[in-house]
Amino acid sequence: MFRFEQPILFKHCDPAGIVFYPRYFEMMNDCVEAFFDKVVEWPFKDIHKVGAVPTAEIRTRFLAPSRLGDHLVFNLKLTRVGRTSCGIEISADCEGETRFQTELTLVNVDGGGKPQEWPEQVKQRLLDQSAFA
Amino acid sequence: MFRFEQPILFKHCDPAGIVFYPRYFEMMNDCVEAFFDKVVEWPFKDIHKVGAVPTAEIRTRFLAPSRLGDHLVFNLKLTRVGRTSCGIEISADCEGETRFQTELTLVNVDGGGKPQEWPEQVKQRLLDQSAFA
Amino acid sequence: MFRFEQPILFKHCDPAGIVFYPRYFEMMNDCVEAFFDKVVEWPFKDIHKVGAVPTAEIRTRFLAPSRLGDHLVFNLKLTRVGRTSCGIEISADCEGETRFQTELTLVNVDGGGKPQEWPEQVKQRLLDQSAFA
Amino acid sequence: MFRFEQPILFKHCDPAGIVFYPRYFEMMNDCVEAFFDKVVEWPFKDIHKVGAVPTAEIRTRFLAPSRLGDHLVFNLKLTRVGRTSCGIEISADCEGETRFQTELTLVNVDGGGKPQEWPEQVKQRLLDQSAFA
Repeated sequence: MFRFEQPILFKHCDPAGIVFYPRYFEMMNDCVEAFFDKVVEWPFKDIHKVGAVPTAEIRTRFLAPSRLGDHLVFNLKLTRVGRTSCGIEISADCEGETRFQTELTLVNVDGGGKPQEWPEQVKQRLLDQSAFA
Repeated sequence: MFRFEQPILFKHCDPAGIVFYPRYFEMMNDCVEAFFDKVVEWPFKDIHKVGAVPTAEIRTRFLAPSRLGDHLVFNLKLTRVGRTSCGIEISADCEGETRFQTELTLVNVDGGGKPQEWPEQVKQRLLDQSAFA
Repeated sequence: MFRFEQPILFKHCDPAGIVFYPRYFEMMNDCVEAFFDKVVEWPFKDIHKVGAVPTAEIRTRFLAPSRLGDHLVFNLKLTRVGRTSCGIEISADCEGETRFQTELTLVNVDGGGKPQEWPEQVKQRLLDQSAFA
Repeated sequence: MFRFEQPILFKHCDPAGIVFYPRYFEMMNDCVEAFFDKVVEWPFKDIHKVGAVPTAEIRTRFLAPSRLGDHLVFNLKLTRVGRTSCGIEISADCEGETRFQTELTLVNVDGGGKPQEWPEQVKQRLLDQSAFA
């Protein structure tokens, strides 16, 4: 389980005073980016020299609104490690209340956008992480 | 079917030269906002005087990348009209290729965030639109 | 003078119900992008094959707030055409009220970020436009 | 001097691989928001119960591009404390290189957007901070 702290800032909130939901997807991307940086040890700046890890599918349930000043904790769990892809779940909580739950699939692609196998060391770290989930 | 034109601009694109996926969710929100404005005739500025129509759930499959200069057409279809919610599908296409498909559920809530019935006239327009989908 | 229509959408507005000012800079960039596309006839997708036109300096006075549903008109004026740069002014108005005024300097750079002369035809179109300002 | 750490993330970068300049204005707002939270001890969530602190004017010189993975440090300095406004300078640096410099004016307004005097305690903290700048 990878833990990611996410305070809710002014820029995230809409005229109703709650997080504008497209901003949540930026936060999720930040969380996945931090996971690749700190846990997988394959930072986005290195990934993008040789390819990319685009999101192929994402599904999110928004369970309760978040407000300016809330402090969210995102818990990222690796649920599946495939040959060229992986499955991730993120749950965002604030003071015991779940704000959203999301499931997404990432694909490892080369510079031309074609799926390619995870580098050996990357795959090993993903599998290690998956075992601990 | 509601048609929404969406050119891909510089601000949408990432270092890989393709649309950064959280930006798609801003576009989808723009499309839903235009649908409420032009078809349902209940513009967001009026909705937000009495409540809001937050997205409760959204699921998206990204099928092919979009690039700077592409001209996307979003087709929005109403798939379900409930007492306090509705189901929407959006398909985004460019020159015969589908870029993404999304399904989402909107809920009509009052100022306190509690689900409330659609206003009678709004419900009628949603049902009319649903019948033509 | 280049005219650019900019409706104020939900995504632009903050918890105070007015445009969050960083969103204005996205709009200004959209306006400049449209100017290069339609008037200079050197679209960003072509520029970015050989270089870029980064903003070197920008100064903005926010004179009155804009709200959801407002319809802004941006008027872009070319104020200076240099060897490798140009000066632009944008004024944003809504129903006779100026919302902001901005002055910015764009620089034409090559792929390595070094300033380079405007392509001959581009410079001519900028000068033509400048004369009409 | 208030110090604010700002890593450059994927979401900030454009197809040229450098920070898209409107994103810098979001970062500046985050920096000002953190300054009000931590130093002025008047967090935005409290400010927005009674009014707002909109930016009236901002001027920025972009001196060198920033790239994915860069770690910027923003130094915020209070340059002026007026009756209803204040002047701020932010300099953003990375490994000894200044990336941008900005000067901005904030105005304290009430719920109707009218300038109003800083609350006494807030003014005192701004003046204390200004003396140390």
